Order: sequence, then structure tokens, then C-alpha cells
Amino acid sequence: MIETPYLLFLGDAPDQLAAKVAQGIKDWRPENAVGQYRMDGCKADLGLKDMDLVEAREAGAKTLVIGVANRGGVISQEWKKVLVMALEEGFDLASGLHNLLRDEPDLVAVAEATGRTLHDVRVPVVDYPIANGVRRKGKRCLAVGTDCSVGKMYTAMAMDAEMRARGMKSTFRATGQTGILITGDGVPLDAVVADFMAGSIEWLTPDNDADHWDLIEGQGSLFHVSFSGVTLALIHGGQPDALILCHEPTRSHMRGLPGYTLPSLDVLRDTALQMAHVANPDCKVVGVSVNTQHMPEDEAMAYLARVEADMGLPATDPFRFGSGKLVDALAAM
Amino acid sequence: MIETPYLLFLGDAPDQLAAKVAQGIKDWRPENAVGQYRMDGCKADLGLKDMDLVEAREAGAKTLVIGVANRGGVISQEWKKVLVMALEEGFDLASGLHNLLRDEPDLVAVAEATGRTLHDVRVPVVDYPIANGVRRKGKRCLAVGTDCSVGKMYTAMAMDAEMRARGMKSTFRATGQTGILITGDGVPLDAVVADFMAGSIEWLTPDNDADHWDLIEGQGSLFHVSFSGVTLALIHGGQPDALILCHEPTRSHMRGLPGYTLPSLDVLRDTALQMAHVANPDCKVVGVSVNTQHMPEDEAMAYLARVEADMGLPATDPFRFGSGKLVDALAAM
Repeated sequence: MIETPYLLFLGDAPDQLAAKVAQGIKDWRPENAVGQYRMDGCKADLGLKDMDLVEAREAGAKTLVIGVANRGGVISQEWKKVLVMALEEGFDLASGLHNLLRDEPDLVAVAEATGRTLHDVRVPVVDYPIANGVRRKGKRCLAVGTDCSVGKMYTAMAMDAEMRARGMKSTFRATGQTGILITGDGVPLDAVVADFMAGSIEWLTPDNDADHWDLIEGQGSLFHVSFSGVTLALIHGGQPDALILCHEPTRSHMRGLPGYTLPSLDVLRDTALQMAHVANPDCKVVGVSVNTQHMPEDEAMAYLARVEADMGLPATDPFRFGSGKLVDALAAM
Repeated sequence: MIETPYLLFLGDAPDQLAAKVAQGIKDWRPENAVGQYRMDGCKADLGLKDMDLVEAREAGAKTLVIGVANRGGVISQEWKKVLVMALEEGFDLASGLHNLLRDEPDLVAVAEATGRTLHDVRVPVVDYPIANGVRRKGKRCLAVGTDCSVGKMYTAMAMDAEMRARGMKSTFRATGQTGILITGDGVPLDAVVADFMAGSIEWLTPDNDADHWDLIEGQGSLFHVSFSGVTLALIHGGQPDALILCHEPTRSHMRGLPGYTLPSLDVLRDTALQMAHVANPDCKVVGVSVNTQHMPEDEAMAYLARVEADMGLPATDPFRFGSGKLVDALAAM
């Protein structure tokens, strides 16, 4: 568990996109984002107050989160200076970078000397159990996609926010690096050892109140040959009561797999539901989340209307038109 | 790659079953089994020549394989004495034990001093790639089960042996500890990190001659919630051209999962085939392998006849009645 709130480190981000982890934290957990720390030449700006380390400390920040991708997979000496100062100022550090903080001897030495913690959220720190398949109390919703990167995390985040606003009991359950940094905990599923994947998701979504919803962050796709095993472990470990189908209609092939076409929403519905019924015979597909970012608004609305008619399910783009319809569907269960 | 042939270490095995890894090596790769090493009180016997280390060395053995389960997950001091002597005598050591040889400082020290290698086959030693889904030359067959431990490895081993006897080109591809020790290499799939599961199987089954068959060792089951993700990674990484359905008809619930019933062979066929078609649209289900060990022979034969009639596929128990029918089905493709 990473201590909040955060000071968001944007470093020398070459553009806004490079700071998308920090952007996610600011969008979804603004209460965790005390301020931003930008170095000379930083081209990203979250619109938060620029703070130095002392100011952020005084404002209550506990952890400096690296909210920016580094160039070439190297933690530069310019970054190091700031990170070392942050440890000495009393901050923990949290990072989702591929190269780990714990593999940098200077950071490790300073962290030990100052008693601070280095959080590398790409690396599991829990010994997860093997899944036992026992049914758990409370309700769970999982987003499954026709492909990777079609908006599964965004969908769950948006539903969680809407449910909190309505006073429903819900928890976003992060299964990827960005989600873990946003919320402060979760399971880095893509880095879990094969035998323990489903068990890690059981661990992440334990017994809860009967009217509580876990909104589990989806990963991969049953139809993406590189990562489908991760997706099936989520479906069987998560025991979802409700599935949301996620889709990006303009994609010509599966992400990173030229020659592989996306399944239709019908095929995704039938396949995901069949697999979900193994762990939870009562699971239902309750809605469709469409990422319409590459469609003009009238085309997007027409597409959503067509999906609703064809599938007999509520369909929305939660980013563009809100997640209300999907939350209505959960509330009706 | 583990150097062959082996001296099979049976230690102080309390019974024959405890030595099942050694038994597997002797059954499937007798040419790798130069002799057996038994300590005082050993209750297992493979019917191989009992040898001490010097005799085994002179007979050509390169590696001492721990072919027996240890008690209580501890490598005892009695074992240690033999293992240290073996290293000093010039043997490498190979083990599929949960507790690793490399975690024993005395063995590590002696291995370094003598220049020998400690093989812990439970731990991946290769940096596997992420699967790219590119179609590969040559043919692949995968056994998929209604449950775990229904005879998938045995089926592939038996088919491989039959194919070699017929002069067909085939390679058994091990994906578990026992298979790796038997053949000397493979992928310990249950210990591979989630993102690289499918890629490890692509790596294991590379381009080959057009008439060559990889017989891939199956793992888990699409319907076993603890391990289903591993199975799907095998299906999508392996790109099988042929699937063999494996079943154990007397089981009342999924292994280790009370309350979970086994799927029917029809459901397994349809589900596995649909998932396999994502990676290889030409994949076919070609036969059924039934583990009839808990059925009298007449009942077993009647059951197989009924499966053949119902499924329209050749069905056999490869242990009891040979794997010829399944190999015929591959040869006909």
C-alpha cells in the first residue's frame, strides 16, 4: 500500500502524453494529487500547483510518484538528483517504470539511510495463493475487451466514480501499474507467476458486503493471443457477477498482431459469458462500453444506438457520454 | 538443457509412488537412465542396475537427477552427502523439487568449486518473449483436458513414442517439471510470468519441417478456475493444428475444487476449438484420450466405444490400449 497523498513528478516530460500516469491520478483521484513537480524543459502540465519538495511536504504529500515515462528505459542523473532529495526530505518513492527503483544502488542506499520505502508497482510483493474457487460474498464487475487497450480501465474507473457519486458501495480494483499508482494498491497481474494469477485476483477481491461492488480492472482480451491467459485468469479468479463488453470500432486488427481481426461483440459476449459461468453460473453481460474517440459525435451516437438495438444492452462511451447507463445496469441487478 | 544420460537418485523413497519422476524417465527415455542410486531404506525400485557414483560415471552418466519427492520440503543431510559427492565426482545435479538446489549454500559452494551445474527445472532460466502470434512452419498437437491430471502428459508421451516407432518426425515438448526432467529441456510454464506465458510456448515450438509434429504437453484445463489461464496461453502460444481431448470419467468434481463439475467432452471440444481457432483457423479436434485406470476392462472398452459413437472421433486409453488410433488421426491430416 502506497501512502497518499502524492506529489506528482513530471520530470522533463517531452509532451503531455508522456505524463499519462500522472494525468490518470489527477483525473481519478484528485484528492491524492497535492501538486506537481516539473524540471526544466518539462512540456507536460496537469494544471496542478507547481511545488518544490519542501512545499509539497508542508502541504501533506507523503509519496513522490513518478508519473511520467522515462526515455530509453534509463533513470537519468537529472531525475536521480530529485529522487535522492525527495527521499532525504522524507518522501517515499513510487514508480511503474520498467527499470526498477530497487535496481538503482544509489536510491537503495539513500532509502535505507533515511528509512523511506521504494515502491516498484510492476513487481508483486505478495505471495499470492493458488485460486480455490470458493464463492465470495459481495458483487464483482469485470470489463472484458474485444482487444487490449480499448478502455477497460477507464470504464471501471468511470463506473466507480459514478457509483460513489450515487452513494453506492464500490471499490476500483487495480490490476495494472497505472491503476495501482492511481489508487495506491492492487495486483500487477502481468508480472504474477502463472500458477498464482487467478489466486491473486481472488486475494484482490475478497468477501465484502452483499451490496458492495468490486470494479475489477480488465487486462488483455480472450482473443489476443499474447495475453489471453491473463484475461481468463481474471475471469475465473474474479468470479464476476456482471461483465461489461469493451470495444474500439475503428481498429483494423488486434493491437500488435497484424493479420488478427477483432471478434464481434456477439462473439465476445458468448465466449466471455461461457467462461465466466464456470466460476459463477449467475454471471450476466450487462452493458457495452465503446471507445469512440476516433469517431465524430453523430457517428458515435449512431454506433451506440445500433449496438443497443443489436445486442439488447445499454451502450455508452463513458468518457464522452458518461457511465450512467452502465451503473444503472448494475444497480438493477 | 540438461546433459544426458542420467543416474536416477531414488534416495530414501518411502514407496514406489514417491519415485514417479524417476519412473517417468525410465518409462519414456530408458536410453537416458543408466542406473539407479538408492540409499539405505529406499522402498522404490525401478528395476535398473543399482550403481554407486563411480560406477555410474564409468557407465557414462553425466547428471544425477533427483527422481524422488523429498519429505517435508527439506533436502535432508543424508541426501546432501550424496549430492555433494556427486558434484565432486563430476556430475551435474537436476531437480524438480519445490525447494531449490540453488538455495542450498553448501551445494552452491561445491558446484562452484567443481565447475558443475545445478538445474532447478521449476525455475525458468530463459527470458521468454511476448507472443507475436506469427504462424510457424511444421505441425503441432496439444492435449487439452476436462480437468487437471487426466493424462495429458502421458498421452503426448505415448503418441511421441508411437510416432518415432513409425518413423514419423515428432518431438515431445515438455511444459512441466516431470516432462522437463524426462526429456532434458522444456518450459516450466506454471512458473513463467503472466505476460510471457504464450511467448514461452512460441519459443518452445519454433518453425520446423512441414511434416514434423510437436507434441506439446498440456497443463491445467480451460474449465479449472485455478489454472485455466495457463491452458489458454498454451492454446494461443502453441497454435495447435490438432487437439486431443483428455478425460477421466470417474471423477466427481474438478481436482481440488469441490462443487465444480467437469465439463462434458462435447463442451470441451467446442470451447477448446473456438479458442484454438483464434490462433490457427485450421485447427481440428482429432481424437479422445480417456484415462480408464479406475474402470474394469470391459467397462473401459464400452466407454470408449460410446465416446467414438457420440463424438465421431477415435478414442483410446493410450496406457491400456495404445496410442495408435490417435497417431493414425495425426498421420491422416
